[in-house]
Amino acid sequence: MAEERETIERFWAACDKGEWDVFAGLLAEDVIYRAPKSRERVRGREAVVRFNREFPGDWHLAVEDLVAGEGRAVSRIRFEMVGETGTDTGISFFTFTEDGLISEIEDYWPDPYERPASRAHLSELY
Amino acid sequence: MAEERETIERFWAACDKGEWDVFAGLLAEDVIYRAPKSRERVRGREAVVRFNREFPGDWHLAVEDLVAGEGRAVSRIRFEMVGETGTDTGISFFTFTEDGLISEIEDYWPDPYERPASRAHLSELY
Repeated sequence: MAEERETIERFWAACDKGEWDVFAGLLAEDVIYRAPKSRERVRGREAVVRFNREFPGDWHLAVEDLVAGEGRAVSRIRFEMVGETGTDTGISFFTFTEDGLISEIEDYWPDPYERPASRAHLSELY
Repeated sequence: MAEERETIERFWAACDKGEWDVFAGLLAEDVIYRAPKSRERVRGREAVVRFNREFPGDWHLAVEDLVAGEGRAVSRIRFEMVGETGTDTGISFFTFTEDGLISEIEDYWPDPYERPASRAHLSELY
């Protein structure tokens, strides 16, 4: 368990700092990245490093939550474009090889939305 | 680990089938539900049961992924309104009491989006 948690902490720290050799070292050779809601896919270590290294903009991220166990992990990050107001939330599901390398990454980016009037009586707003 | 996984499987099965006594039995008395992107909050077992029991529409759900460990769990569900086309994706982060009851639920509902042109050279579409 601790190992998967540590790998994901190192993954995001390397991504934020642009330490691409460290980042690459955590990925399986045939790692697959998917963003199911935009139907984006990136295949293989080199392409996944490039996707992150060349991801447009001047950005930073910080891990807000991390759940790890049973050869899996899920993180929630705060993603910030320098000079823009507001931040995005990224949720990533990770799968690992038996050697502890990352073999699958699945990303979700939930946006803010208005509570529908139909359930206004069931919750409070904060 | 196995215990948290089993609790969340029972939680969603009870929610889908409308077995509200079973559902309530998995929640701590002072459970808190939050949907950070709509800023909805529901406090206490009775109110959380009601939020789900009276959630508008004729709906069903199925668990698509579940990661559990270290007193936490994250699930991804497919949520379907009967008679409507398409399904929604719900991602929920769970925290547990020492007794294994659910003490916090945090929900995210990511929508589909178009891949920005600025990263079209970095990924393929599927």
